[in-house]
Amino acid sequence: MPDLAAPGLVLSPTASVGRDVRFGANVVVHDGVVIGDGVTIQDGVILGKSPALHARSTAPRLDGAPLVIEAGAAICAQAVVFAGAHIGAGAVIGDQSDIRERSRIGAGSVVGRGSCVDNDVRIGERVRVQTNVYLTAYSVVEDDVFVGPCAMTTNDDTMARHAPGTPLRGATLHRACRVGGGAVLVPGVEVGEEAFVAAGAVVTNDVPPRALVMGVPARVVRQVADEELLERWT
Amino acid sequence: MPDLAAPGLVLSPTASVGRDVRFGANVVVHDGVVIGDGVTIQDGVILGKSPALHARSTAPRLDGAPLVIEAGAAICAQAVVFAGAHIGAGAVIGDQSDIRERSRIGAGSVVGRGSCVDNDVRIGERVRVQTNVYLTAYSVVEDDVFVGPCAMTTNDDTMARHAPGTPLRGATLHRACRVGGGAVLVPGVEVGEEAFVAAGAVVTNDVPPRALVMGVPARVVRQVADEELLERWT
Amino acid sequence: MPDLAAPGLVLSPTASVGRDVRFGANVVVHDGVVIGDGVTIQDGVILGKSPALHARSTAPRLDGAPLVIEAGAAICAQAVVFAGAHIGAGAVIGDQSDIRERSRIGAGSVVGRGSCVDNDVRIGERVRVQTNVYLTAYSVVEDDVFVGPCAMTTNDDTMARHAPGTPLRGATLHRACRVGGGAVLVPGVEVGEEAFVAAGAVVTNDVPPRALVMGVPARVVRQVADEELLERWT
Repeated sequence: MPDLAAPGLVLSPTASVGRDVRFGANVVVHDGVVIGDGVTIQDGVILGKSPALHARSTAPRLDGAPLVIEAGAAICAQAVVFAGAHIGAGAVIGDQSDIRERSRIGAGSVVGRGSCVDNDVRIGERVRVQTNVYLTAYSVVEDDVFVGPCAMTTNDDTMARHAPGTPLRGATLHRACRVGGGAVLVPGVEVGEEAFVAAGAVVTNDVPPRALVMGVPARVVRQVADEELLERWT
Repeated sequence: MPDLAAPGLVLSPTASVGRDVRFGANVVVHDGVVIGDGVTIQDGVILGKSPALHARSTAPRLDGAPLVIEAGAAICAQAVVFAGAHIGAGAVIGDQSDIRERSRIGAGSVVGRGSCVDNDVRIGERVRVQTNVYLTAYSVVEDDVFVGPCAMTTNDDTMARHAPGTPLRGATLHRACRVGGGAVLVPGVEVGEEAFVAAGAVVTNDVPPRALVMGVPARVVRQVADEELLERWT
Repeated sequence: MPDLAAPGLVLSPTASVGRDVRFGANVVVHDGVVIGDGVTIQDGVILGKSPALHARSTAPRLDGAPLVIEAGAAICAQAVVFAGAHIGAGAVIGDQSDIRERSRIGAGSVVGRGSCVDNDVRIGERVRVQTNVYLTAYSVVEDDVFVGPCAMTTNDDTMARHAPGTPLRGATLHRACRVGGGAVLVPGVEVGEEAFVAAGAVVTNDVPPRALVMGVPARVVRQVADEELLERWT
C-alpha cells in the first residue's frame, strides 16, 4: 500500500499509485496520474496539473493523456509536472522545476533544480540537465547530452509576430553533446553529436559534430579530442 | 459562493473573494486580498504576502495597499504575489513566479513561469513576459512588449555603493519592443518603440525606436522592417 | 512557546524550535532541524530536506549534520533549505530559493529570490546575493561581496567527463568584490578583492584585485576608483 498517511496529501481517486511509493508532505496528485512502483514524491510536489492556457498561447490543448511516472523515478521538492508528461524509469526531476504537457524525460535522466522543460520537449536517456536551465517548446535532447546550468534555448525568431500555425523551432541537441553554463541558443539551432559549446556562448548557427565553439556569436575554435569522447567516460 | 471547500485553503477573514473563483489545493490568502470574479488560483499559490524586508533593503515599506486581482485573471501553481500588487483583468501569472509589492500587471498580460517582477514595476497591457525573466525594481514595460525567456535587467550601476536615497533606475521597454532571450540590460536603459534586441545581447546604451541591435555590447545592425511591425500582427 | 497553531505545519518531533519563532502556513520541518530564537519561517517553506541523490551525483552523502538556523534569520516563502546547511544570524533566504547540504550562509547575508546555493558553498557575512543567482558547488563567497541578479558560476570544465574523485572547482569571490547581473564565471575563477565584473561579462580568467572587467571574454578596462571602495560606503 502507498503511504497514504502523508500529511496534507491530496490524491485524486482516479490516480494510480504503485507499490512502495513514498510521498512527502503537502503533495497534490490530480486526476489520472499514473505513479509507478518505487517512485519518490517529495514535499510540495504538484502532479498532473492541467495546462491552463492563455487564450493567446500557441501550445496545443491537452489531448487527455495522463502524466505517467515510471518506476523508481524521483520528483523532488515543489516540482510541478503537468498532465500529459512522461517521466522515465529512474529519472530525477529536481526541486522547484516545471515539466510541461507532452514532454518526455528518458530513463535515468536528471532535470536540475529550478529548470523548466516546456511543452512538447523530448529528452533522451541519461541526459543531465543542470540547474536553472530553460528548454523551450519543441526542443529535442538526445541521449547522453549534458546541459550546463542556466543554459537556455529559444524557438521563435519573430517573438510572436508570425502567421497562425507557423511551427516553432526549438533546439536540437544531438547525442552526447555538451552545452556550457549560461549558453544561449537561437531558434532551430542544432548542436552536433559530441560537440561542445563553451560557457556563455551565444549559438547562432548549427554546431558541427565534435566541434568546440565559444564566444558571441559562437565560432568553432577546435575539435573535441578523442580522449574527451563519451566512450572514454562510461 | 467561492469554492471554500478547496483542500488546505488558508483564507484570511479580511480577504474578499468574488463570484466563480476557483481555488486549487493548499492556497494561502493573506489579509486584505481582493479577488475578482472568475479568477483562477492554482495549487500552492500564496497571495498577499507582506514584504519581509531586510534592514538594508532599499525598497520602501508597504503603504498598506492590498493585493488586487481583477476579474478573469489566473494565478498559476506556486506563484507568490505580494500585498500591494495589482493584477489586471485576464492577466496570467505563471507557475512559480514572484510578483512583488506595488507592481502592476496590465490587463491581458502574461508573466511566464518562474519569472520575477520586483517591486514598483509597471507592466502595460498585452505584454508577454516569457519564462525565467527578471524585471528589476522600477522598470517600466509598456503595452504590447515581448520579453524573451531568461532576459534580465539591472538597476544599480554601483551595486549598492551609493548615497542613501539615490534613485535606482530600472529598464524602460517602450511600446511593442521585443527583447530576445537571455538579453542583459544595464541600469536605466531604454528600448525604443518597436525596437528588437537579439537573443544574448548585452544592452549598454539606449536602443532607438525600430532599431535592431545584437552583440556584446549591443550595436544597431538594421531597422525593423515594415512587415514586422505590430500593426501587421494584431 | 512557538506558534504551533500555524495552519498545515508539519513539524518533526526531533526538530528544535527557539523562542518567538513565527511560522507561516504549510511549513514542513524535517528531523533534527534547529531553529533559533526569533526566526521567521514563511509560507510553504521546507526545512531540513534530506539530500535525495541521484546515483551519478558527485555530491558527498549527508554526514548527518542537521540544518541549523541562527537567531533572527528569515526563511522566505517556498524556500527549500537542506539538512546540513547553516544559516547565520539575521540572514535572509529569499522566496523560492534553494540552499543545499553543507552550505553556510554568514550572518547578515541575503540570498535573493529564486537563487540556488548548491552543496558545499561557503558564503561570508553581509553578502548580498541578488535574484535568480546560481552559486555552484564548492564556491566560496567572502564577506561583503555583491552578486548581481542572474549571475552564475560553473565548476566542471569537462561537463562530467573526468575521473572519479576529480575535485570540482567552484568560483571564489574575494572580499567586497562585485559581480554584475547576468555574468558567467567559468570553473575555478577567482575574482579579487574589491574587483568589479560588469553586467553580462563572461569571466574566463582570474580577475585581479580592484580590476574592473567587462566583455566576452572579460578584459580589464580600468581600476576601481578609491571613492568606490567599500570603506566609503559602510
